[in-house]
Amino acid sequence: MEEIFTLLIDCNDEKGLIYKITSVLFLHQFNIIRNDEYVSQEDKHFFMRSELSGQSNTEELMSELKKVLPVNANIRLSKKQKKNIVILVTKEHHCLSELLIRAYFNELNANILAVISNYDSLNEYVEKYNIPFHFVSHKDVSRTEHETEILKIISRYSPDYIVLAKYMRILSSDFIRQYENKIINIHHSFLPAFIGANPYRQAFERGVKIIGATAHFVNDQLDEGPIISQNTIAVDHKQDAIQMALSGKDIEKYVLSNALQIVLDDKVFVNGNKTIVFD
Amino acid sequence: MEEIFTLLIDCNDEKGLIYKITSVLFLHQFNIIRNDEYVSQEDKHFFMRSELSGQSNTEELMSELKKVLPVNANIRLSKKQKKNIVILVTKEHHCLSELLIRAYFNELNANILAVISNYDSLNEYVEKYNIPFHFVSHKDVSRTEHETEILKIISRYSPDYIVLAKYMRILSSDFIRQYENKIINIHHSFLPAFIGANPYRQAFERGVKIIGATAHFVNDQLDEGPIISQNTIAVDHKQDAIQMALSGKDIEKYVLSNALQIVLDDKVFVNGNKTIVFD
Amino acid sequence: MEEIFTLLIDCNDEKGLIYKITSVLFLHQFNIIRNDEYVSQEDKHFFMRSELSGQSNTEELMSELKKVLPVNANIRLSKKQKKNIVILVTKEHHCLSELLIRAYFNELNANILAVISNYDSLNEYVEKYNIPFHFVSHKDVSRTEHETEILKIISRYSPDYIVLAKYMRILSSDFIRQYENKIINIHHSFLPAFIGANPYRQAFERGVKIIGATAHFVNDQLDEGPIISQNTIAVDHKQDAIQMALSGKDIEKYVLSNALQIVLDDKVFVNGNKTIVFD
Amino acid sequence: MEEIFTLLIDCNDEKGLIYKITSVLFLHQFNIIRNDEYVSQEDKHFFMRSELSGQSNTEELMSELKKVLPVNANIRLSKKQKKNIVILVTKEHHCLSELLIRAYFNELNANILAVISNYDSLNEYVEKYNIPFHFVSHKDVSRTEHETEILKIISRYSPDYIVLAKYMRILSSDFIRQYENKIINIHHSFLPAFIGANPYRQAFERGVKIIGATAHFVNDQLDEGPIISQNTIAVDHKQDAIQMALSGKDIEKYVLSNALQIVLDDKVFVNGNKTIVFD
Repeated sequence: MEEIFTLLIDCNDEKGLIYKITSVLFLHQFNIIRNDEYVSQEDKHFFMRSELSGQSNTEELMSELKKVLPVNANIRLSKKQKKNIVILVTKEHHCLSELLIRAYFNELNANILAVISNYDSLNEYVEKYNIPFHFVSHKDVSRTEHETEILKIISRYSPDYIVLAKYMRILSSDFIRQYENKIINIHHSFLPAFIGANPYRQAFERGVKIIGATAHFVNDQLDEGPIISQNTIAVDHKQDAIQMALSGKDIEKYVLSNALQIVLDDKVFVNGNKTIVFD
Repeated sequence: MEEIFTLLIDCNDEKGLIYKITSVLFLHQFNIIRNDEYVSQEDKHFFMRSELSGQSNTEELMSELKKVLPVNANIRLSKKQKKNIVILVTKEHHCLSELLIRAYFNELNANILAVISNYDSLNEYVEKYNIPFHFVSHKDVSRTEHETEILKIISRYSPDYIVLAKYMRILSSDFIRQYENKIINIHHSFLPAFIGANPYRQAFERGVKIIGATAHFVNDQLDEGPIISQNTIAVDHKQDAIQMALSGKDIEKYVLSNALQIVLDDKVFVNGNKTIVFD
Repeated sequence: MEEIFTLLIDCNDEKGLIYKITSVLFLHQFNIIRNDEYVSQEDKHFFMRSELSGQSNTEELMSELKKVLPVNANIRLSKKQKKNIVILVTKEHHCLSELLIRAYFNELNANILAVISNYDSLNEYVEKYNIPFHFVSHKDVSRTEHETEILKIISRYSPDYIVLAKYMRILSSDFIRQYENKIINIHHSFLPAFIGANPYRQAFERGVKIIGATAHFVNDQLDEGPIISQNTIAVDHKQDAIQMALSGKDIEKYVLSNALQIVLDDKVFVNGNKTIVFD
Repeated sequence: MEEIFTLLIDCNDEKGLIYKITSVLFLHQFNIIRNDEYVSQEDKHFFMRSELSGQSNTEELMSELKKVLPVNANIRLSKKQKKNIVILVTKEHHCLSELLIRAYFNELNANILAVISNYDSLNEYVEKYNIPFHFVSHKDVSRTEHETEILKIISRYSPDYIVLAKYMRILSSDFIRQYENKIINIHHSFLPAFIGANPYRQAFERGVKIIGATAHFVNDQLDEGPIISQNTIAVDHKQDAIQMALSGKDIEKYVLSNALQIVLDDKVFVNGNKTIVFD
């Protein structure tokens, strides 16, 4: 019986890579349903994503690919299936509720294993979906203690990705390093504008005519990880900072859920501080 | 000395196509700078566009590719160079002037060989660019006579593409068939809405909140050729039909010049009534 | 104690209207927080919306306004407060769930009194919000019987507005006339394109590069009522009809919830087949 | 004979302003074609723009308005007519050529009196339009000397507005103060992101998915004047810094020409570091 696989390869560019890879696929009688390649000219790095149908032995395929590819190539081969995610939130619901609904109605390529928050205000809403809600207050504990507690809960679920759906606390480098390129954040503004607190107040005071949102992988520099997706929305002088924040919620949940979807579909490569998106 | 080539292939899909094509390229020591493939699942048709650098004998390359590809495959191999175009207009300047400027400042991958119009009102402006302007009035002649005259002028220039930059007369099937998939039109609305005359009056009377423009190849059904690019712009109740048309001009010239650019860069395949765009 | 009122006036245009209206407001010591006017030049009709703060006798204010305005002027004065709505759906959840969440988290200026559907598939989800769900099957009953049953339920709730959140049955003229300019529909496409069934299949087959959604008041011509809001989203050849429909859901729920919000905020006038939107 | 006037008023907000202003207009038998008001809630400042038709004595009108308005109110009354502008450029043509064409075809509400540049590369193109081109090199002269020379040329033309259409030198505070709220700049990015040199290189290195442009009045803080208009355009990993700059040109010229148009139509108020736009 034929199955669908996703093959992700990235390595230093050299002549003949596509030929060498596809010759292995052809020999193993895989059919290529969709294929995308990209070579970053800056650093001469090669990226390829293939959707394959076939019934071959995947271990053998991996070992054959390794033989024809540069020694430090990254090769990932996986069956098409739902990923597992854990969501971190603070008090705002809009990104969380968007993801809960999409998962509930089977429109998100993921199982939401748990929601963790430093407040308990969203507990009641999350319970409607029969998903565990973990309230881990940051009060009266050190940042390290707080993160240790959260990491303990996360590790119990072994998620593929951690989604910061308006989690308003800065994660330590230690935390981030444990989940490198596995944490996705929605930033409440059009990065690199309005870094830091109260972006809609900043936007209002600057009198901007457009606001935006940015979904990105988290690295250990605040607001500086690889951008996955961005979008913007027009505003005008009639909107105050509160109304701008309301418009911002629409664009934030749209950008986060779509960025997450393409990550879950294995369509995003991280290359240094940038992403290659085969959407 | 290495040169840059663009290779366009489309044929019925079958297992191993990418492997077979890239094996030929590898044997001829071409380096693939950029590669895009797509398989249309509806009709199982395969499309591939490659940017290659190399110094090999292109005739030999073509003959080797033919050997490995299905017998009815379309294979086009060309050096990266400017295309030649002829522009048809009526009275409105905005799309024409956008293309003239881009060509003048070397930002359009094309030489504008001539401008043909059924009015002489844009003559003076075109002359500023030292480009031949042919005034072919449609008055007191039959449609066939008018088109024959225009076709005679066009054939003198042997253009790669004909651009209808707000040419407001309907071309006959005979005319179109002579330049199949070589005529690009800008439609003054968001197809398939508002087909026919006075689209901005129609848009105004319908009270729409968005207007758009569509660039498409012309086939023998009015407003029905394969769409290359579309875009939209917000309008509101304060704009009358004339002001909507003014907003429309901005989006029309933007859509046309960008659609033309990707066609000139050999990034567009036509597949029946649709396009595959590797932008 | 001061209260906030919204005053909506429309009438034939004549010299001095703003002066006459504001003189009455000034005499009654109302403060104008926000004021918008528009004169439709086509039919010389005047529209004005004022947000007022004051503590005056509203009956007296109405009677004074009537004295200075043309005899057939429409004058509506209301306290700023939540409106009541009833939602009709079929099987698709995305617009409904968006409205449920906004209402649940107090971000929609409305109470959702009930949800009515011709299928029971969304019952379980609606119950999470403790909102009555009425399943009224259209099977084995005539269209008139079906509508009569629905109208009976609606009348029980006396809603200010009825929202068709992907209700896939065409309402009769009789139904619509009972709620003139009170029924808001989301149309699954960029009107006037792709009228009728299966718009995303139509869009896919036409090979469009942009899809859209339209929120409009329902009148007795299918897909022809006054447009409140529209928006579009880019698509490309890689998306099939199903994936286009998924992209369409994002834009549909965004357009519907925002159109509804401006209606609930009394920011929309209907003028024949168009709307005047003071957003 | 009736004429069309634009009346602009701004002053501290107080009860009855609209009433008082429109009573004067009514007494002078002006008809209000279009009226827009806005009260900034932050600083309780009132803004009103009226398009009037009438034949009254405008001096008398001004004096009557002064009587009913707060003593420090700004009142501007002008006939609807073309404004005069001078354009400053460096080497890039795209914003300049857009404005030249719009003016040439009577689509810009302005006369372009002259173009001034610190390079002579655009001389030939500007001459096509029979508009004076002043080449004022910044080489071998101090910044003060350079600006003095430019100011001397500008003052000869007494323009209503100065447009920086990609003028790449920073103007001194002295220069700017002489033309307060009269200098309009196009910023090659989505402010406040990517302030400073090489914004598209910065954008590329940051791996953004959207680029933008900002038109703003110039004040004495670099890139910090009141924003008139902004817009954005999607980019992706396939575009390098040069290609992003090309996409940026499209959005820059669109944003600048539209911002300039609404300024020329007297639709923009400056309020501190923000604008009120009645478009």
